[in-house]
Amino acid sequence: MLASRPAVHPIEYPPEATENPRRVRMKDVQGMGGTTGGLALRLCQFIFAAAALCVMASTDDFSSATAFRYLVAAAGLQSLWSLALALLDIYALLVKRCLRNSRVLCLFTIGDGITCTLTFAAACASAGITVLLGNDLDNCKVSQCIRFETATGMAFLSWFAISPSFFLNFWSLATK
Amino acid sequence: MLASRPAVHPIEYPPEATENPRRVRMKDVQGMGGTTGGLALRLCQFIFAAAALCVMASTDDFSSATAFRYLVAAAGLQSLWSLALALLDIYALLVKRCLRNSRVLCLFTIGDGITCTLTFAAACASAGITVLLGNDLDNCKVSQCIRFETATGMAFLSWFAISPSFFLNFWSLATK
Repeated sequence: MLASRPAVHPIEYPPEATENPRRVRMKDVQGMGGTTGGLALRLCQFIFAAAALCVMASTDDFSSATAFRYLVAAAGLQSLWSLALALLDIYALLVKRCLRNSRVLCLFTIGDGITCTLTFAAACASAGITVLLGNDLDNCKVSQCIRFETATGMAFLSWFAISPSFFLNFWSLATK
Repeated sequence: MLASRPAVHPIEYPPEATENPRRVRMKDVQGMGGTTGGLALRLCQFIFAAAALCVMASTDDFSSATAFRYLVAAAGLQSLWSLALALLDIYALLVKRCLRNSRVLCLFTIGDGITCTLTFAAACASAGITVLLGNDLDNCKVSQCIRFETATGMAFLSWFAISPSFFLNFWSLATK
Protein backbone atom coordinates (compact mmCIF):
# COMPACT_ATOMS: atom_id res chain seq x y z
CA MET A 1 0.00 0.00 0.00
CA LEU A 2 1.59 3.19 -1.21
CA ALA A 3 -0.62 5.83 0.29
CA SER A 4 0.57 6.59 3.78
CA ARG A 5 -1.90 7.50 6.46
CA PRO A 6 -2.02 11.19 7.27
CA ALA A 7 0.13 12.10 10.24
CA VAL A 8 -1.74 13.22 13.31
CA HIS A 9 -0.92 16.74 14.44
CA PRO A 10 -2.80 17.34 17.63
CA ILE A 11 -3.95 20.94 17.79
CA GLU A 12 -4.17 22.40 21.25
CA TYR A 13 -7.45 24.03 22.04
CA PRO A 14 -7.08 27.62 23.12
CA PRO A 15 -7.76 28.00 26.83
CA GLU A 16 -11.44 28.64 27.33
CA ALA A 17 -12.21 32.19 28.34
CA THR A 18 -14.53 31.30 31.18
CA GLU A 19 -13.89 34.56 33.03
CA ASN A 20 -14.45 38.02 31.69
CA PRO A 21 -11.33 39.80 32.98
CA ARG A 22 -13.03 43.20 33.27
CA ARG A 23 -15.48 42.01 35.85
CA VAL A 24 -14.66 42.09 39.50
CA ARG A 25 -15.11 38.84 41.36
CA MET A 26 -14.99 38.48 45.09
CA LYS A 27 -14.34 34.97 46.25
CA ASP A 28 -13.51 35.07 49.92
CA VAL A 29 -13.73 38.65 51.07
CA GLN A 30 -13.79 38.86 54.85
CA GLY A 31 -17.25 39.97 55.94
CA MET A 32 -19.21 37.70 53.60
CA GLY A 33 -21.26 34.79 54.89
CA GLY A 34 -19.19 31.81 55.99
CA THR A 35 -16.04 33.80 56.85
CA THR A 36 -14.66 34.77 60.25
CA GLY A 37 -15.11 38.45 59.33
CA GLY A 38 -18.76 37.77 58.51
CA LEU A 39 -19.21 36.01 61.84
CA ALA A 40 -17.62 38.97 63.66
CA LEU A 41 -20.01 41.38 61.88
CA ARG A 42 -23.03 39.25 62.79
CA LEU A 43 -21.95 39.08 66.44
CA CYS A 44 -21.48 42.89 66.51
CA GLN A 45 -24.95 43.36 65.01
CA PHE A 46 -26.46 41.01 67.56
CA ILE A 47 -24.68 42.57 70.55
CA PHE A 48 -25.54 46.17 69.62
CA ALA A 49 -29.15 45.35 68.74
CA ALA A 50 -29.61 43.39 71.97
CA ALA A 51 -28.03 46.25 73.94
CA ALA A 52 -30.37 48.78 72.28
CA LEU A 53 -33.34 46.54 73.11
CA CYS A 54 -32.34 46.06 76.75
CA VAL A 55 -31.44 49.71 77.44
CA MET A 56 -34.64 51.00 75.85
CA ALA A 57 -36.81 48.40 77.57
CA SER A 58 -35.24 49.30 80.94
CA THR A 59 -36.57 52.90 80.79
CA ASP A 60 -39.82 53.58 82.64
CA ASP A 61 -41.76 55.40 79.94
CA PHE A 62 -40.48 54.11 76.63
CA SER A 63 -43.97 52.86 75.86
CA SER A 64 -45.32 56.41 75.85
CA ALA A 65 -43.66 57.17 72.49
CA THR A 66 -44.47 55.13 69.40
CA ALA A 67 -40.92 55.52 68.05
CA PHE A 68 -39.38 54.03 71.20
CA ARG A 69 -41.76 51.05 71.07
CA TYR A 70 -40.84 50.63 67.41
CA LEU A 71 -37.14 50.73 68.32
CA VAL A 72 -37.68 47.86 70.77
CA ALA A 73 -39.48 45.82 68.09
CA ALA A 74 -36.91 46.57 65.37
CA ALA A 75 -33.95 45.85 67.66
CA GLY A 76 -35.61 42.58 68.68
CA LEU A 77 -36.05 41.50 65.07
CA GLN A 78 -32.49 42.59 64.22
CA SER A 79 -30.98 40.65 67.12
CA LEU A 80 -32.91 37.48 66.23
CA TRP A 81 -31.90 37.71 62.54
CA SER A 82 -28.24 38.40 63.36
CA LEU A 83 -28.10 35.61 65.94
CA ALA A 84 -29.57 33.13 63.45
CA LEU A 85 -27.05 34.11 60.76
CA ALA A 86 -24.19 34.06 63.28
CA LEU A 87 -25.10 30.46 64.17
CA LEU A 88 -25.24 29.63 60.45
CA ASP A 89 -21.80 31.20 59.98
CA ILE A 90 -20.39 29.14 62.87
CA TYR A 91 -21.83 25.99 61.27
CA ALA A 92 -20.39 26.94 57.86
CA LEU A 93 -16.97 27.58 59.42
CA LEU A 94 -17.04 24.29 61.32
CA VAL A 95 -17.95 22.12 58.34
CA LYS A 96 -15.91 24.38 56.00
CA ARG A 97 -18.82 24.97 53.67
CA CYS A 98 -19.24 28.05 51.55
CA LEU A 99 -22.49 30.03 51.73
CA ARG A 100 -22.46 31.29 48.12
CA ASN A 101 -25.49 29.56 46.70
CA SER A 102 -27.56 32.01 44.63
CA ARG A 103 -30.79 31.37 46.50
CA VAL A 104 -29.12 31.57 49.90
CA LEU A 105 -27.38 34.81 48.91
CA CYS A 106 -30.67 36.26 47.64
CA LEU A 107 -32.40 35.34 50.91
CA PHE A 108 -29.59 36.84 53.01
CA THR A 109 -29.55 40.04 50.92
CA ILE A 110 -33.31 40.56 51.21
CA GLY A 111 -33.29 39.79 54.94
CA ASP A 112 -30.33 42.06 55.57
CA GLY A 113 -31.94 44.83 53.51
CA ILE A 114 -35.21 44.63 55.46
CA THR A 115 -33.65 44.45 58.95
CA CYS A 116 -31.09 47.13 58.03
CA THR A 117 -33.85 49.52 56.87
CA LEU A 118 -36.04 48.84 59.90
CA THR A 119 -33.18 49.31 62.38
CA PHE A 120 -32.03 52.51 60.70
CA ALA A 121 -35.58 53.89 60.61
CA ALA A 122 -36.06 53.10 64.30
CA ALA A 123 -32.71 54.65 65.22
CA CYS A 124 -33.50 57.84 63.25
CA ALA A 125 -37.00 58.18 64.72
CA SER A 126 -35.65 57.69 68.25
CA ALA A 127 -32.85 60.15 67.60
CA GLY A 128 -35.37 62.74 66.39
CA ILE A 129 -37.45 62.37 69.58
CA THR A 130 -34.43 62.22 71.89
CA VAL A 131 -33.06 65.47 70.41
CA LEU A 132 -36.53 67.05 70.60
CA LEU A 133 -36.96 66.13 74.27
CA GLY A 134 -33.39 66.77 75.36
CA ASN A 135 -32.35 69.84 73.36
CA ASP A 136 -35.37 71.53 71.79
CA LEU A 137 -37.91 71.23 74.63
CA ASP A 138 -35.48 70.68 77.54
CA ASN A 139 -38.16 68.45 78.98
CA CYS A 140 -36.38 65.25 79.89
CA LYS A 141 -35.17 63.70 83.12
CA VAL A 142 -31.38 63.36 82.86
CA SER A 143 -31.28 59.67 83.73
CA GLN A 144 -33.97 58.87 81.14
CA CYS A 145 -32.41 61.00 78.43
CA ILE A 146 -29.07 59.23 78.78
CA ARG A 147 -30.78 55.87 78.38
CA PHE A 148 -32.71 57.01 75.31
CA GLU A 149 -29.48 58.32 73.80
CA THR A 150 -27.61 55.12 74.62
CA ALA A 151 -30.31 52.93 73.07
CA THR A 152 -30.38 55.12 69.95
CA GLY A 153 -26.59 55.02 69.67
CA MET A 154 -26.59 51.23 70.00
CA ALA A 155 -29.20 50.96 67.24
CA PHE A 156 -27.02 53.15 64.99
CA LEU A 157 -23.98 50.96 65.77
CA SER A 158 -26.01 47.87 64.89
CA TRP A 159 -26.93 49.53 61.59
CA PHE A 160 -23.25 50.35 60.94
CA ALA A 161 -22.43 46.66 61.46
CA ILE A 162 -25.21 45.34 59.23
CA SER A 163 -24.53 47.68 56.29
CA PRO A 164 -21.27 45.95 55.20
CA SER A 165 -22.97 42.54 55.39
CA PHE A 166 -25.80 43.80 53.19
CA PHE A 167 -23.55 45.44 50.60
CA LEU A 168 -21.15 42.47 50.42
CA ASN A 169 -24.07 40.08 49.92
CA PHE A 170 -25.62 42.37 47.31
CA TRP A 171 -22.29 42.72 45.50
CA SER A 172 -21.65 38.97 45.42
CA LEU A 173 -25.24 38.37 44.28
CA ALA A 174 -24.68 40.83 41.40
CA THR A 175 -21.35 39.27 40.38
CA LYS A 176 -22.65 35.67 40.75
CA MET B 1 6.86 10.76 -5.02
CA LEU B 2 4.99 7.96 -3.40
CA ALA B 3 4.33 9.41 0.03
CA SER B 4 1.17 11.44 -0.15
CA ARG B 5 0.83 14.59 1.92
CA PRO B 6 -1.44 14.22 4.90
CA ALA B 7 -4.95 15.37 4.19
CA VAL B 8 -5.98 18.54 5.94
CA HIS B 9 -8.96 18.17 8.21
CA PRO B 10 -9.75 21.61 9.52
CA ILE B 11 -10.94 21.44 13.08
CA GLU B 12 -13.46 24.02 14.08
CA TYR B 13 -12.54 25.93 17.19
CA PRO B 14 -15.22 25.79 19.81
CA PRO B 15 -17.01 29.14 20.07
CA GLU B 16 -15.16 31.25 22.58
CA ALA B 17 -16.95 31.52 25.86
CA THR B 18 -16.64 35.26 26.22
CA GLU B 19 -19.62 35.50 28.55
CA ASN B 20 -20.23 33.44 31.60
CA PRO B 21 -23.89 32.52 31.17
CA ARG B 22 -24.50 32.29 34.92
CA ARG B 23 -23.81 35.97 35.44
CA VAL B 24 -26.56 38.49 35.06
CA ARG B 25 -25.80 41.48 32.86
CA MET B 26 -27.96 44.51 32.61
CA LYS B 27 -27.33 46.59 29.54
CA ASP B 28 -30.20 48.98 29.14
CA VAL B 29 -32.53 48.45 32.03
CA GLN B 30 -35.01 51.29 32.33
CA GLY B 31 -34.18 53.29 35.43
CA MET B 32 -30.43 53.41 34.92
CA GLY B 33 -28.65 56.65 34.06
CA GLY B 34 -29.18 57.81 30.47
CA THR B 35 -32.55 56.07 29.98
CA THR B 36 -36.03 57.60 29.94
CA GLY B 37 -36.93 55.50 33.01
CA GLY B 38 -33.90 56.92 34.80
CA LEU B 39 -34.95 60.45 33.86
CA ALA B 40 -38.48 59.78 35.15
CA LEU B 41 -37.06 58.51 38.47
CA ARG B 42 -34.84 61.59 38.82
CA LEU B 43 -37.75 63.91 38.11
CA CYS B 44 -39.90 62.09 40.71
CA GLN B 45 -37.11 62.41 43.28
CA PHE B 46 -36.74 66.10 42.53
CA ILE B 47 -40.47 66.84 42.65
CA PHE B 48 -41.09 64.97 45.92
CA ALA B 49 -37.98 66.40 47.62
CA ALA B 50 -38.85 69.94 46.51
CA ALA B 51 -42.43 69.42 47.72
CA ALA B 52 -41.18 68.19 51.11
CA LEU B 53 -38.90 71.21 51.36
CA CYS B 54 -41.60 73.72 50.44
CA VAL B 55 -44.33 72.22 52.66
CA MET B 56 -42.03 71.97 55.68
CA ALA B 57 -40.61 75.46 55.15
CA SER B 58 -44.16 76.87 54.92
CA THR B 59 -45.01 75.84 58.51
CA ASP B 60 -44.60 78.48 61.20
CA ASP B 61 -42.59 76.58 63.76
CA PHE B 62 -40.56 73.99 61.84
CA SER B 63 -37.39 75.62 63.14
CA SER B 64 -38.31 74.71 66.73
CA ALA B 65 -37.48 71.03 66.13
CA THR B 66 -34.02 69.96 65.00
CA ALA B 67 -35.43 67.07 62.96
CA PHE B 68 -37.66 69.38 60.92
CA ARG B 69 -34.75 71.73 60.18
CA TYR B 70 -32.73 68.67 59.17
CA LEU B 71 -35.56 67.55 56.85
CA VAL B 72 -35.44 70.93 55.10
CA ALA B 73 -31.66 70.64 54.63
CA ALA B 74 -31.77 67.01 53.47
CA ALA B 75 -34.67 67.66 51.06
CA GLY B 76 -32.78 70.66 49.68
CA LEU B 77 -29.67 68.57 49.04
CA GLN B 78 -31.76 65.77 47.54
CA SER B 79 -33.60 68.08 45.16
CA LEU B 80 -30.34 69.72 43.97
CA TRP B 81 -28.68 66.32 43.38
CA SER B 82 -31.71 64.89 41.57
CA LEU B 83 -32.12 68.01 39.43
CA ALA B 84 -28.45 67.88 38.42
CA LEU B 85 -28.69 64.21 37.46
CA ALA B 86 -31.98 64.78 35.64
CA LEU B 87 -30.28 67.46 33.50
CA LEU B 88 -27.41 65.05 32.86
CA ASP B 89 -29.91 62.36 31.83
CA ILE B 90 -31.61 64.80 29.43
CA TYR B 91 -28.22 65.63 27.91
CA ALA B 92 -27.32 61.93 27.61
CA LEU B 93 -30.67 61.20 25.92
CA LEU B 94 -30.28 64.12 23.50
CA VAL B 95 -26.77 63.21 22.37
CA LYS B 96 -27.56 59.47 22.71
CA ARG B 97 -24.60 58.80 24.97
CA CYS B 98 -24.46 56.05 27.52
CA LEU B 99 -23.58 56.90 31.13
CA ARG B 100 -21.91 53.57 31.96
CA ASN B 101 -18.33 54.70 32.56
CA SER B 102 -16.97 53.05 35.71
CA ARG B 103 -15.95 56.30 37.38
CA VAL B 104 -19.23 58.02 36.55
CA LEU B 105 -21.17 55.01 37.86
CA CYS B 106 -19.08 54.99 41.05
CA LEU B 107 -19.72 58.72 41.57
CA PHE B 108 -23.47 58.32 40.96
CA THR B 109 -23.67 55.32 43.30
CA ILE B 110 -21.87 57.12 46.14
CA GLY B 111 -23.93 60.29 45.65
CA ASP B 112 -27.19 58.36 45.48
CA GLY B 113 -26.21 56.35 48.58
CA ILE B 114 -25.46 59.49 50.60
CA THR B 115 -28.54 61.48 49.56
CA CYS B 116 -30.74 58.38 49.92
CA THR B 117 -29.50 57.78 53.48
CA LEU B 118 -29.85 61.45 54.48
CA THR B 119 -33.37 61.75 53.05
CA PHE B 120 -34.51 58.51 54.70
CA ALA B 121 -33.00 59.55 58.05
CA ALA B 122 -34.73 62.95 57.86
CA ALA B 123 -38.05 61.36 56.90
CA CYS B 124 -37.84 58.84 59.78
CA ALA B 125 -36.88 61.49 62.35
CA SER B 126 -39.72 63.75 61.21
CA ALA B 127 -42.14 60.82 61.24
CA GLY B 128 -41.10 59.99 64.81
CA ILE B 129 -41.76 63.56 65.96
CA THR B 130 -44.98 63.93 63.96
CA VAL B 131 -46.38 60.74 65.49
CA LEU B 132 -45.22 61.85 68.97
CA LEU B 133 -46.89 65.27 68.64
CA GLY B 134 -50.03 64.10 66.87
CA ASN B 135 -50.84 60.74 68.45
CA ASP B 136 -48.83 60.25 71.64
CA LEU B 137 -49.03 63.76 73.15
CA ASP B 138 -52.09 65.03 71.24
CA ASN B 139 -50.37 68.41 71.32
CA CYS B 140 -50.46 69.66 67.76
CA LYS B 141 -52.52 72.21 65.88
CA VAL B 142 -54.42 70.34 63.15
CA SER B 143 -53.25 72.59 60.31
CA GLN B 144 -49.62 72.25 61.39
CA CYS B 145 -49.81 68.51 61.92
CA ILE B 146 -51.17 67.95 58.43
CA ARG B 147 -48.27 69.92 56.95
CA PHE B 148 -45.70 68.01 58.99
CA GLU B 149 -47.27 64.75 57.85
CA THR B 150 -47.37 65.88 54.22
CA ALA B 151 -43.71 66.94 54.25
CA THR B 152 -42.72 63.64 55.89
CA GLY B 153 -44.73 61.67 53.34
CA MET B 154 -43.13 63.57 50.46
CA ALA B 155 -39.67 62.83 51.88
CA PHE B 156 -40.55 59.11 52.05
CA LEU B 157 -41.81 59.21 48.45
CA SER B 158 -38.55 60.85 47.38
CA TRP B 159 -36.67 58.06 49.14
CA PHE B 160 -38.83 55.45 47.37
CA ALA B 161 -37.88 57.05 44.06
CA ILE B 162 -34.17 57.27 44.78
CA SER B 163 -33.78 53.68 46.04
CA PRO B 164 -34.19 52.04 42.57
CA SER B 165 -31.66 54.48 41.09
CA PHE B 166 -29.17 53.62 43.80
CA PHE B 167 -29.61 49.84 43.54
CA LEU B 168 -29.51 49.86 39.71
CA ASN B 169 -26.31 51.92 39.75
CA PHE B 170 -24.79 49.66 42.42
CA TRP B 171 -25.77 46.54 40.46
CA SER B 172 -24.30 47.81 37.20
CA LEU B 173 -21.16 48.90 39.04
CA ALA B 174 -20.81 45.39 40.47
CA THR B 175 -21.40 43.68 37.09
CA LYS B 176 -19.15 46.14 35.20
